[in-house]
Amino acid sequence: MINQEMKNLGQNASAIRELFEYGKRRKQEIGEENVFDFSIGNPSVPSPQIVNETLINLINNTESTHLHGYTSAAGDINVRRKIVEYLNKKYNCQLDENLMYLTVGAAASLTISINAILNSDDEVILFAPYFPEYKVFVEKAKGIIKIVKPLEKTFTPDFEMFEKTITSKTKMVIINSPNNPTGVVLKENEIIKISEILSKKAKEYNHDIYLLSDEPYRELIYNDINYPFITNYYNNSIVCYSFSKSLSLPGERIGYIVINPTMNDASSVYQAICGAGRALGFVCAPSLFQYMIPSCLGYTSDLKIYKDNRDKLYQALTSYGYEVVKPEGAFYLFMKALGDDAIKFSSLAKKYELLLVPSDSFGYGGYVRISYCVPYQQIELSLKAFKQLIDDYKKTNEVEYE
Amino acid sequence: MINQEMKNLGQNASAIRELFEYGKRRKQEIGEENVFDFSIGNPSVPSPQIVNETLINLINNTESTHLHGYTSAAGDINVRRKIVEYLNKKYNCQLDENLMYLTVGAAASLTISINAILNSDDEVILFAPYFPEYKVFVEKAKGIIKIVKPLEKTFTPDFEMFEKTITSKTKMVIINSPNNPTGVVLKENEIIKISEILSKKAKEYNHDIYLLSDEPYRELIYNDINYPFITNYYNNSIVCYSFSKSLSLPGERIGYIVINPTMNDASSVYQAICGAGRALGFVCAPSLFQYMIPSCLGYTSDLKIYKDNRDKLYQALTSYGYEVVKPEGAFYLFMKALGDDAIKFSSLAKKYELLLVPSDSFGYGGYVRISYCVPYQQIELSLKAFKQLIDDYKKTNEVEYE
Repeated sequence: MINQEMKNLGQNASAIRELFEYGKRRKQEIGEENVFDFSIGNPSVPSPQIVNETLINLINNTESTHLHGYTSAAGDINVRRKIVEYLNKKYNCQLDENLMYLTVGAAASLTISINAILNSDDEVILFAPYFPEYKVFVEKAKGIIKIVKPLEKTFTPDFEMFEKTITSKTKMVIINSPNNPTGVVLKENEIIKISEILSKKAKEYNHDIYLLSDEPYRELIYNDINYPFITNYYNNSIVCYSFSKSLSLPGERIGYIVINPTMNDASSVYQAICGAGRALGFVCAPSLFQYMIPSCLGYTSDLKIYKDNRDKLYQALTSYGYEVVKPEGAFYLFMKALGDDAIKFSSLAKKYELLLVPSDSFGYGGYVRISYCVPYQQIELSLKAFKQLIDDYKKTNEVEYE
Repeated sequence: MINQEMKNLGQNASAIRELFEYGKRRKQEIGEENVFDFSIGNPSVPSPQIVNETLINLINNTESTHLHGYTSAAGDINVRRKIVEYLNKKYNCQLDENLMYLTVGAAASLTISINAILNSDDEVILFAPYFPEYKVFVEKAKGIIKIVKPLEKTFTPDFEMFEKTITSKTKMVIINSPNNPTGVVLKENEIIKISEILSKKAKEYNHDIYLLSDEPYRELIYNDINYPFITNYYNNSIVCYSFSKSLSLPGERIGYIVINPTMNDASSVYQAICGAGRALGFVCAPSLFQYMIPSCLGYTSDLKIYKDNRDKLYQALTSYGYEVVKPEGAFYLFMKALGDDAIKFSSLAKKYELLLVPSDSFGYGGYVRISYCVPYQQIELSLKAFKQLIDDYKKTNEVEYE
């Protein structure tokens, strides 16, 4: 009688949430320090000091009805101008504040963009492994998911499969770099290749294909990689961003959508974004956090902490014999499960108090995601368990493993 | 190619927004004090001091990754418990924190509830005049709007028409008290009558009908009226609330949904709410503003200011000869247009620099909405224009008007 699709979504928490909730219960049973919870991507590094300083300054020095009042639905125009100026300088692009829309975080950036663009039965291509909520968002908008599996070991795009997956019904492609769950960063040559294939296919089918770049981890890159900003490569591109990870503000819900000014009929797409924001119930992004942004552009939480975590974990796990994709960004590590069944392996790891998310819900089997946005000490304490796990596994599965 | 429905929604701003934007331009032309902008419901009274005090206290004394981190999707459980305790005491009801879901404001409360409940082609009954976005929200969820016109003059529900409008496809009824745009408050006997009719019809058709009470203006009541809290009267009821108006925080986006524990299969409905929140892209309500709530429960902005505005405006307009519905709550005044055509009258009023929203988009013609959440001085200054308008109108339309 009520909407069963929504009921099922509410009933079946994501695999990530489920493991996270298990972890909370388990910590109460055996003590926080004895559970090695690598389930969730909740930043473990405090916000840079400028965040709280700016908030207090705004609260103390801004007239209440202005500070806490409605902004325009797309966000305060001065805030948008500052963000655009910052991005244009940093990435040498030509964005326009009138084509930017502030949102309550990355999830809202995605649902608004998806609902603005898609009609029923339009196809959306995802590169596996992908953030599981993409599927939820696209299906709610009545779109159809098509998955492109990655190249083995490197987890980079399989361009041949990508090209074959594009049909006359393809309306959107979603990329996510640095990637959740692998930590892989798309390089400039890969962005160029994706853009070329899309342009060719869009021409062949004589309709627009939108490239949506979901980049909440854009600032969390540990190697010396120039981030290729998508609007410099592909006209029909949309950037979805959130300050959740760069400023450690995931609970505050602040982010944006910006569309490429060179997009075909950019103003219509922008209107559809405004319309979708309205119809989904997003009135405006939280005003205090909007006004915070200009002072905090260019700042990030201390990323060295995540890098140290990555290095420690990567070094240890490979030395124990695990097969691991070396993350270049974000705070996730993708590790091959022992045995083919990631769900079984995740259960096994639980016995060692290691909470690792099986990769199946990311659209790719046989791996686990390790969220290393945790205290360094947790990583140190967990290593013994990781070692024990693989040693025990080797013993009991000698024949199959060797 | 993109979603035309969303494009149209973005392109055609609401009548309220359109007039508001006109007002901004006009103020630049002739000076702020010369435009009498009664277009928008943006609280003009500062937040009570406790709001900013609590925010600063939280920022200074809470660990950053906790304060700004994800809460559970439904909101922090301790915050929910405090709200429920407050409501149970105030309204003598039996709510449950496990059936409460914190949201980014009233619009989100509505879209989440609507998407949780409705299937395609389900009918939703609105009492005219109604807040225009209800139509947008319901139609996005593929529901079908059915409108019940009010009794003339009093703008109270026409129960006979209401009963006739309920069909086997009726899934939801939305009430809004104090009402935007009339300021009318539903009395206990009216709530009882609505509940009785719904119970009877639900039984007749043998399916559940949900009563959604949208009550962001619940604390803004000027007369000595006991607010009948809906869960005390009807089992299948859902309360949608926002702190926007009571605490003058419309930009910050914080509110909640709470469902009646005596609802049939309450846990399934709650799951569907969690699922809809997830699918629409609401990850959690802004965490800082969640944690603010417990300290601010029971506080409101200074409502006397709105009451003074109401009294001044009501007294003056009636003395000039306007026909006005006396508002009992909210900060809107519903005034009969001079002539039958409210849109034409709104245009005429513009010539006197009076910005009044024509009632057509509220599903009822022939009136204008006057938002009196403005400085008292604006009301004083505007009175001359209101008087001039009706005097001129009487002169030029002598025959028809007398």
